[in-house]
Amino acid sequence: MFPGSPTPDRPVSQPVHFHQPARFPRGFHNASRNVGLKPTARDLTLFVSDVEANAAAVFTRNHFPGAPIILGRETIRGGRLRAIIANSKCSNVATGDEGVRRARRMAAAAAAEVGTSADRVLVSSTGVIGVPLPIEKIEVGVKGIMGDLSDDPLLGAEGIMTTDTHPKALSVSVGEATITFVAKGSGMIEPNMATMLAYIFTDAALDAATLDRMLREAVHVSFNMLSVDTDTSTSDTCAILANGLAGAVDEAAFQAALTAGCLRMTEILARDGEGAEHLIRATVRGASDEGEARRVAKSLVNSPLVKTMVHGADPNVGRLLMAVGKCFEVPIAASRTDAWINATPVVRGGMRLDFADATVRETLKAEVVELVVDLGLGTATATAYGCDLTKGYVDENAAYYSS
Amino acid sequence: MFPGSPTPDRPVSQPVHFHQPARFPRGFHNASRNVGLKPTARDLTLFVSDVEANAAAVFTRNHFPGAPIILGRETIRGGRLRAIIANSKCSNVATGDEGVRRARRMAAAAAAEVGTSADRVLVSSTGVIGVPLPIEKIEVGVKGIMGDLSDDPLLGAEGIMTTDTHPKALSVSVGEATITFVAKGSGMIEPNMATMLAYIFTDAALDAATLDRMLREAVHVSFNMLSVDTDTSTSDTCAILANGLAGAVDEAAFQAALTAGCLRMTEILARDGEGAEHLIRATVRGASDEGEARRVAKSLVNSPLVKTMVHGADPNVGRLLMAVGKCFEVPIAASRTDAWINATPVVRGGMRLDFADATVRETLKAEVVELVVDLGLGTATATAYGCDLTKGYVDENAAYYSS
Repeated sequence: MFPGSPTPDRPVSQPVHFHQPARFPRGFHNASRNVGLKPTARDLTLFVSDVEANAAAVFTRNHFPGAPIILGRETIRGGRLRAIIANSKCSNVATGDEGVRRARRMAAAAAAEVGTSADRVLVSSTGVIGVPLPIEKIEVGVKGIMGDLSDDPLLGAEGIMTTDTHPKALSVSVGEATITFVAKGSGMIEPNMATMLAYIFTDAALDAATLDRMLREAVHVSFNMLSVDTDTSTSDTCAILANGLAGAVDEAAFQAALTAGCLRMTEILARDGEGAEHLIRATVRGASDEGEARRVAKSLVNSPLVKTMVHGADPNVGRLLMAVGKCFEVPIAASRTDAWINATPVVRGGMRLDFADATVRETLKAEVVELVVDLGLGTATATAYGCDLTKGYVDENAAYYSS
Repeated sequence: MFPGSPTPDRPVSQPVHFHQPARFPRGFHNASRNVGLKPTARDLTLFVSDVEANAAAVFTRNHFPGAPIILGRETIRGGRLRAIIANSKCSNVATGDEGVRRARRMAAAAAAEVGTSADRVLVSSTGVIGVPLPIEKIEVGVKGIMGDLSDDPLLGAEGIMTTDTHPKALSVSVGEATITFVAKGSGMIEPNMATMLAYIFTDAALDAATLDRMLREAVHVSFNMLSVDTDTSTSDTCAILANGLAGAVDEAAFQAALTAGCLRMTEILARDGEGAEHLIRATVRGASDEGEARRVAKSLVNSPLVKTMVHGADPNVGRLLMAVGKCFEVPIAASRTDAWINATPVVRGGMRLDFADATVRETLKAEVVELVVDLGLGTATATAYGCDLTKGYVDENAAYYSS
């Protein structure tokens, strides 16, 4: 969908070839069914490995984490997972100690079905906040789900969808091993927030500490640079499971493929952001340090005026400069700042260039819009991923009723 | 329009009575005319004092300040102003040294007409970015404008309007003196950004240093807590002129009236934010320090999901907690957090209360929506002012063509 995710500033030395269609690594399967949380749609999804896997995960930094996040932080300390169980419709957030007890019951119910212990099952819940998790429906409904197992990751990807317009799964080979990425987001009609769930499965043999380090490196440049609307969910989860069935892999190649897959998934999530019609890729280079580059890149994809400018296909240089210039804590020299819209130079030394307006306007109608800003201060660079702001976003979120 | 701006947390001990209609202090007048920047609407406005006034001003913190801001910072160092000249349609931003030269010519042209020197004239420009200021039209057009002087501040308020739906002027008495507030914002169709201009005129006798201190104190709790869409203009200006014609005033009373007027104007600007249908007043109390209270209050009024929740009149507790919880750098204890929507308790100890949903939903249809969050950590408090996010915002900003 997005040919060659790299920006001009971050060339991918070896092009990554994603499988078509996506497939699971050895020993991974999934299943999804309706257990009565929603009227008829699939609302409970299981991902399972034939054998126990080493595992790592990162979670939302929101100060009001959901019960599954509180439990997940405890579970992942063991570094071992056999399964992930995820429900939609109810996020089990702001539900206090009883919420955590119900999350534990959900893990235990899935563990009994899979044939493992509850501390080997990661739980995810998305949906409305502040209502009790209908745990009985889940406990009854999960029974027999192992009989539904499928080897098509699109089934699980579809099972965890909320306002996503399409299921999201990718896979790629690293030597003998496979890495499979399944994710949902960033829609908001059913959950209150743009909850992002991303599950990564591999048959490579890697220990939990290595997985943790590699996952954090990949997430740093991908999911952590994604913003649909600046709002951070209380349920965001990204986990990786490595069951080792394919044996050892070259770690550098694995990291490259892991990062590439996370980046591609980030772009797919941004493009499918609620109401979105464009993917915005904003690259800042020439920054004094990476933190400053990230700050300015995020400011560009988060600015409502930049987002509506992309939606309106208007090469509005003023809005670009405004969004850069409002990063007060970043040292910026107006006279050293250059900018490009879809590879056309539009600003040099802080002044608007006399560019071919109609041509740039035409390029802004493309699905992917590329904004590049060079601060002229150093060598650090960063890319952020976002989407345009449309009336569809307002429609979906103003029409939502929380109770 | 907004009876009693104070929140429950910041009662105004003496109610402030604004004049109806607003009027100028002794010795201040204004004029506004079309000089050909726009087809027919007024595009050049002059505010003038009969005698030179002590003055202070604060400007945008954006790293790409417009030429009038660069010149204004130099001018205000003198602490003396006789006039303000403001044009719309062209913001004179990203125009380099030539832009500053043209801003100087604009000051000089107004000074010649008023009968003062250029360094006693503050210049403001709003409109498109990156195009040369049509200075000749202004130099020709300003001639004779002193013959148009009026004592109705609504005339000047209308002259500086862009996408504002109504002119904005207030005045209040402090002893024998009067303070008059004229402002525009936060619309964006014609200027690229929510440029805020606020001019304050008084006949009180106060020196420039005192004015500067008082202005900063008032702006800190008012205009600096206003956000329509998180985007900071390159042209924001707030200036105060005190011509002394009413003699000395009680400084504490003056400060109270100045702050009250700035707060009221802040609420009026928020309510008239582009596409807005509601004013959102978000108060955070129980914070460890004021900076943290301000940070969380701003997060509430800036969250697209809170803004669309208000637009949709939905008491979505999850979105409130999310917006509080995403202030990662603020120490927040979920179990100590309480929240209210329009005075109804909706969260206690981080858990959603079982409140009368339909009742709260009904109160959310009011023009003013009051969100209160108590962090339970200390005694600091802050209030931020914003508006709902509507399709009108997207319409206005996606339809705008910058060239």
